[in-house]
Amino acid sequence: MRLTRTSDLWWKNAVVYCLDVETYQDSDGDGHGDFRGLIQRIDHLQRLGVTCLWLMPYYPSPDRDDGYDITDYYGVDPRLGSHGDFVEFVRTARDRGIRVIADLVVNHTSDQHPWFQSARSSPDSPYRDWYVWADEPPADGPQGIAFPDQETSLWTYDKVAGQYYLHRFYKYQPDLNVTNPQVRDEIARTIGFWLQLGLSGFRVDAVPFLLETTGQDDAGALPDPHAYLADLRAFLGRRSGEGALLGEVNLLYPDTMTFFGTDRDELTMCFDFIGMQRMYLSLARGNAEPLAEALRERPEPPRDAHWATFVRNHDELTLDKLTDTQRQEVFEAFGPDPDMQLYGRGLRRR
Amino acid sequence: MRLTRTSDLWWKNAVVYCLDVETYQDSDGDGHGDFRGLIQRIDHLQRLGVTCLWLMPYYPSPDRDDGYDITDYYGVDPRLGSHGDFVEFVRTARDRGIRVIADLVVNHTSDQHPWFQSARSSPDSPYRDWYVWADEPPADGPQGIAFPDQETSLWTYDKVAGQYYLHRFYKYQPDLNVTNPQVRDEIARTIGFWLQLGLSGFRVDAVPFLLETTGQDDAGALPDPHAYLADLRAFLGRRSGEGALLGEVNLLYPDTMTFFGTDRDELTMCFDFIGMQRMYLSLARGNAEPLAEALRERPEPPRDAHWATFVRNHDELTLDKLTDTQRQEVFEAFGPDPDMQLYGRGLRRR
Repeated sequence: MRLTRTSDLWWKNAVVYCLDVETYQDSDGDGHGDFRGLIQRIDHLQRLGVTCLWLMPYYPSPDRDDGYDITDYYGVDPRLGSHGDFVEFVRTARDRGIRVIADLVVNHTSDQHPWFQSARSSPDSPYRDWYVWADEPPADGPQGIAFPDQETSLWTYDKVAGQYYLHRFYKYQPDLNVTNPQVRDEIARTIGFWLQLGLSGFRVDAVPFLLETTGQDDAGALPDPHAYLADLRAFLGRRSGEGALLGEVNLLYPDTMTFFGTDRDELTMCFDFIGMQRMYLSLARGNAEPLAEALRERPEPPRDAHWATFVRNHDELTLDKLTDTQRQEVFEAFGPDPDMQLYGRGLRRR
Repeated sequence: MRLTRTSDLWWKNAVVYCLDVETYQDSDGDGHGDFRGLIQRIDHLQRLGVTCLWLMPYYPSPDRDDGYDITDYYGVDPRLGSHGDFVEFVRTARDRGIRVIADLVVNHTSDQHPWFQSARSSPDSPYRDWYVWADEPPADGPQGIAFPDQETSLWTYDKVAGQYYLHRFYKYQPDLNVTNPQVRDEIARTIGFWLQLGLSGFRVDAVPFLLETTGQDDAGALPDPHAYLADLRAFLGRRSGEGALLGEVNLLYPDTMTFFGTDRDELTMCFDFIGMQRMYLSLARGNAEPLAEALRERPEPPRDAHWATFVRNHDELTLDKLTDTQRQEVFEAFGPDPDMQLYGRGLRRR
């Protein structure tokens, strides 16, 4: 790659640092981090070699799931600062050569979001169809519970609504119905707002779940959800030439590949979950072969897309794509105590 | 002026249209205007020849003074829309060659603003010194009551605070203490935020009152308030090359001139209140001479500053700079009924 392309395709060489403003640096001694604290650390981050900061959700939230339960997509949680602080932060980071991306969590809202509160209040609410409702949990609906220690179903009956609602994650996180054009418009406006404040793109939470339409009455009649992701990427590109989407897609390589887009661009980057897990297997074995094998298997992303190689992030260190025997090897090496493990599939954060 | 300079010095030829989003165009039939309604009218405004929209306050507000009583400088009043709608509006206006400026109302806040609620709660509140307090209304304090039918003093005793606070306007609009560096920083952050969202500048409310320090204990020891206005303008210019300040300064020409700045730039434009009032006298007399005289008297603004010639705005049509006899002539021509007059100094909006 020519050196001059490294600014256009900045994500190819970016060193991304993920942080939660709330736990990073406290400026006023009230016991939790804030944007003014983070600003004081930008020079430190720059000296570490960071070229892109990924901010975990900083939006207003009851904070029952580390801020991934949002009540206002346009807001800054007052505990963390104001919109003014946010702008100062992004400008200062940019000045030091650090781009900023933020978590885009639009698979679901908090159940405290005014949209959900309105939706549940009446079938006639203009927000009713912003969520996914059913009189009975459909037998052919989505499968797989994200937090098996906390939830027993993807559907919860809401007495106020008189119907079940879909929640891919915790029951206080009702899934948005992204097949609804109004929801899509609102997601676009959200993206437009934060780009205008200086963001260079988004880490997109739970992408496969976001696009999933299984179990909706009209799933068969709906357009290909990947077309929506491609539309979103095109919109992003029109608003910001440097705009990038870093997607959370924890699937096998061939399935993940579809999220880069087939004919049209979708995600700019996907996390390499397979490479990450094989790396820990390599470390457990003291042998690079499992990692080398993953890198040989790994398909080439199309066009200018890119794999996001990563070591850790804020979720549990998932080992779900290893075989049972391989996972056991990693457990034995790095988390033999059952307390160090989570859901039988990964290592607990610590 | 060379044609190519007309974009740099855009304010020299701008056709400014002032509107209140709340009363302009309703998109959802709830009885008050909103940003989505305004967006539908941008093409209409462009065809009218408008090149700059001045938005009256659209911030969250108890709305006791047409939104000039603000509770959150970073917000969009939910009745009018969201931050997302705001960004769409500014982008669409810009696309049609229309710049947007907004009212910057930092002489005072609403008494419902969290800063004031904190300030009054305790002398130890970090926001106490964001307002102007006195144990007794000072004899040498500011003079002149803006709304003589509603208020009898510029000072109101607050039982919670145990002190009097200054309010240049209504008693529910406590004056901010702009000599406090924290208040100045916060005003800068507010400006930075809205510029980032695409504004081209601000109409600055009540400029002489904003800069006034008369009656503060340490007024004599304070730096020249004009230095603050020059600092604010310099900050604006660093953030946005096209950023302009249109100031509400209703004084005689020589006094107004000082607000353009002597050595350094302050306001980009001042409303020509004198010319406006003489124009109505001309209309009343059917004789252009009073207006012509005002234009001959009018000093040349320094550097690239400019007079904002105007016919009407949202306040009462003030005639306070005419002589009593002249004012009577205009009253007789356009508002003979006492009900059409306000405060004995102007014509009521109608």
